[in-house]
Amino acid sequence: MNPTLATDTADSAEATASVTPEMTPITAVYRIRCAPNAVEQVCQNIAYEQTVEVPPALAEADDRIRRWVGRIDSIQPIPGVPDGFEARISYDHLLAGGQLPQLLNLLFGNTSLQKNVSLSDVDFPEELLRNFRGPQFGVEGLRRLLGVHGRPLLATALKPVGLSIPELAALAHEFALGGGDLVKDDHNLHDATFGAFQERIARCHEGVCRANAQTGRNTLYLPNLMVPVEQLERYLKYALSLGIRGVLVSPFIAGLDVIRSLAERYSTLVMAHPTFAGGYCVEPKQGIETGLLLGKLFRLIGADISIFPNYGGRFSFSQADCQSITRHLRTPLGQLSAAWPAPAGGMRIDNLPQMSRQYGADAIFLIGGALLSHSGSLKNSTREFLKRIESQFSTRLVEPDTGFASACEVPRSAAASTNASPVVLTHLSHSPATGAWEGRPIAAYKACQSLPFRDVVRHELIGPFGEQTDFDLRYFAIAPGGFSSLEKHAHTHAVICVRGQGTLAVGDEIVQLKAMDVAYVPPMHVHQLRNESTEPFGFFCIVDHERDRPQAP
Amino acid sequence: MNPTLATDTADSAEATASVTPEMTPITAVYRIRCAPNAVEQVCQNIAYEQTVEVPPALAEADDRIRRWVGRIDSIQPIPGVPDGFEARISYDHLLAGGQLPQLLNLLFGNTSLQKNVSLSDVDFPEELLRNFRGPQFGVEGLRRLLGVHGRPLLATALKPVGLSIPELAALAHEFALGGGDLVKDDHNLHDATFGAFQERIARCHEGVCRANAQTGRNTLYLPNLMVPVEQLERYLKYALSLGIRGVLVSPFIAGLDVIRSLAERYSTLVMAHPTFAGGYCVEPKQGIETGLLLGKLFRLIGADISIFPNYGGRFSFSQADCQSITRHLRTPLGQLSAAWPAPAGGMRIDNLPQMSRQYGADAIFLIGGALLSHSGSLKNSTREFLKRIESQFSTRLVEPDTGFASACEVPRSAAASTNASPVVLTHLSHSPATGAWEGRPIAAYKACQSLPFRDVVRHELIGPFGEQTDFDLRYFAIAPGGFSSLEKHAHTHAVICVRGQGTLAVGDEIVQLKAMDVAYVPPMHVHQLRNESTEPFGFFCIVDHERDRPQAP
Repeated sequence: MNPTLATDTADSAEATASVTPEMTPITAVYRIRCAPNAVEQVCQNIAYEQTVEVPPALAEADDRIRRWVGRIDSIQPIPGVPDGFEARISYDHLLAGGQLPQLLNLLFGNTSLQKNVSLSDVDFPEELLRNFRGPQFGVEGLRRLLGVHGRPLLATALKPVGLSIPELAALAHEFALGGGDLVKDDHNLHDATFGAFQERIARCHEGVCRANAQTGRNTLYLPNLMVPVEQLERYLKYALSLGIRGVLVSPFIAGLDVIRSLAERYSTLVMAHPTFAGGYCVEPKQGIETGLLLGKLFRLIGADISIFPNYGGRFSFSQADCQSITRHLRTPLGQLSAAWPAPAGGMRIDNLPQMSRQYGADAIFLIGGALLSHSGSLKNSTREFLKRIESQFSTRLVEPDTGFASACEVPRSAAASTNASPVVLTHLSHSPATGAWEGRPIAAYKACQSLPFRDVVRHELIGPFGEQTDFDLRYFAIAPGGFSSLEKHAHTHAVICVRGQGTLAVGDEIVQLKAMDVAYVPPMHVHQLRNESTEPFGFFCIVDHERDRPQAP
Repeated sequence: MNPTLATDTADSAEATASVTPEMTPITAVYRIRCAPNAVEQVCQNIAYEQTVEVPPALAEADDRIRRWVGRIDSIQPIPGVPDGFEARISYDHLLAGGQLPQLLNLLFGNTSLQKNVSLSDVDFPEELLRNFRGPQFGVEGLRRLLGVHGRPLLATALKPVGLSIPELAALAHEFALGGGDLVKDDHNLHDATFGAFQERIARCHEGVCRANAQTGRNTLYLPNLMVPVEQLERYLKYALSLGIRGVLVSPFIAGLDVIRSLAERYSTLVMAHPTFAGGYCVEPKQGIETGLLLGKLFRLIGADISIFPNYGGRFSFSQADCQSITRHLRTPLGQLSAAWPAPAGGMRIDNLPQMSRQYGADAIFLIGGALLSHSGSLKNSTREFLKRIESQFSTRLVEPDTGFASACEVPRSAAASTNASPVVLTHLSHSPATGAWEGRPIAAYKACQSLPFRDVVRHELIGPFGEQTDFDLRYFAIAPGGFSSLEKHAHTHAVICVRGQGTLAVGDEIVQLKAMDVAYVPPMHVHQLRNESTEPFGFFCIVDHERDRPQAP
């Protein structure tokens, strides 16, 4: 199978002769409203519009073009819908290139602009699904984090805008004390500056952690990541650096592919909010079927949890919409884990049994106002709601899996904050007498029991002090007999030996470094620097400014 | 005015007493379909839903909360629309924080999920608009690039999928020979790998450049940037490195904020495609008014050109839709430049005069099929179409402004391609005898007349050879009396002196570097390294892997 869509010169003659190979199809299901005698033409238009976008005569004349045109598999009337048809059109999965942007464009790009055509489902081949990680935690992973089995989870939102940080933190604390499972920021809650975000989420997280210390449970706090795309990762990394395990994201605001990318690259629980999605799913004659949109697509981009307006609440979602979302989140989908439906709104203490029957155990009940207004104490209300839920299920509580949160690295010092203001020309004069640089304190090397080291001194030089670099420059001195911790991480090292000599071990490879030698340590390779000589060993080490924490081998 | 939304403890008592300051409003105009006696309640629901999202009683009891609730300015029946109302609701602009994601969420986040409510316009205050760069080239800037004044521009698309690279390049070449203004990739055209993209766009661009050399004009080629978000900047930078001046983007696929960020940070013409936008703008009872969506919002995120389906073509956009888009692109909007409407489809040689009257001179006619099928020669067809357009206007051609394209830096060598495969442990042993590193050729320092230098040797060590780093590590040796070019750029330098001594000049500041000294050169500061001693001066220099080109002071 030829993976390039634009054929090379040399190949083109051959290609013309040998094309139309058996394709692996992505099959889109469209719902069309039109006169019965027009439906075939509408389908043909879609098959061309979504692929080659030229008049049929031009495509028919050239096999290299014709082979990419969508294939109409079937057209069926929709029972009970006058002038309603369901058409299945298959595309060669190579047209999506295993990539979300091109996939969305292929399924519904220009056709989204046609009246009376909606995208109601898609069958993805394994070849395509393999390119997507999907939910990282999913149903099972989140249950392990929480240690909660057998019942739906209870979640709430911190709001409204205008409350003080201590008030928001107190709400989070109370909810966790009451045994609630997840407390997220309201999606309208945001901060004027990164500093304000840092303070707010640190206090809210701390409120939850204090409660967890009392209850022995592992209630999770998920802050709202609604910030410009340039800042998303900075905010996320800060949250993760506090030990926060997940975030609230808004894929239709941030971009579906942005969330896919974040979810793929970070170890974070992803709770997806449907804000701004309405354009696609409110009018059934147009757009994308609700379950496909907030179920299958959210799961494809890595959402562990999909929030949606529950039927009977203040939005116009029907029971069928909610069922469809739930089904798409749970139905087998290649290697992708099942994700959580999180109906929001329309849930009260009295209809929890009904909601429990409706959604079953693997759902998250997101309850805001009804919980807050139930009694004077959020802790007590949370307990009552939980008790009511538990009365419908056989709940099993086990030790939460908090392993990740105990991963060790000392947080950055205040001076080394990424929040420092930009600096201008910096000259760090080196003192041969002290071995240090003017204006740069000597930092203790990672003080962490599980990654032991000996006789290592670290000097942070460039990067953490407001310099606008994508990298940090540090200097390490290892005394004779000393060594750095044996560790691995996704970020890489570039090392420049400038003093004495040392040993660099990377996996099974060992190299000797002498003055002016340069070395590169690749991602996720266990490594260690040792001084096996009798003289001091000194080297510069350059790392990416934004980097993951070291892990034990 | 208090810029933090969550008030601090210390302030909260005071805040309660002193709030409800005069706000600077963002005013949203919603169109609502409901019974006349329900419309006030619907408006109140919107005002709360989009801001505090709690029951009115709770907000009314606390001034700190109440002050953020949307203000209903007016509700008017829409003439001729039964049960149709237009409501203006104002929000404190601080709720958007000057940021696009929060702005979209504020205007239409959850309310997008309500039936029978659409967002029909928005009045942005200057305070908000100041945060947006808007079109970087706009109408005037693109005219200067092209040297074409007084008439609409003619654009075409390279397609279909399946053509070979030389065939696509030949189409681009012919169109440019015919005097066409802009040739873009079809939005369905993409490549299986970065290497394939590199080859394809280099050949297409080269086809256009060869034609430009013949015609003396400056036809522009805009490649399609439909790739995963992690790769967007790599693709864009490659295009810009070829001297390509602009790109085709799809904001509803990539994310509106992603395109805003790209447009803000790169010197590139942005042509925005409406693919996948249909959910928002096909059904007038829902979603976002077409002109607001593809006109005002596209302009806000920095689109220089907005493509939309022309009326009378194969899509269902009305003449009124096209007029609304055009109006929103041109009407004064704070400090934002006017942008180009680019109607596509429904244009033929015979209705060009009518289209010219409809859109006026400041429009781009995007003509694909009709141009290709007009005659056997795309060059001749392009000439004929242009002649027809020019017959309606007083065209003035001047020297195109190609200044940017002649900016000098030698392209990266093949070995230094970012396309190299990942490497594992690298050990570069330094030879004191040769002063070089094993496996790393000595590179010539920038061979560019306009940025002169003397006696500088560059060794590229880490970064360009497949290492997964966010930075590059190089070593420079400057002989006595030598100097690097006096230059500036947005990226920064970290310098480590390891041999001899040298002078670093940054603006008016001069520092002397001796062995082991470290220096940082901030962005856009003119700088130079000089060896004023009698011994060789050697230093490591670390730069961001992704970086801009040096500019003359």
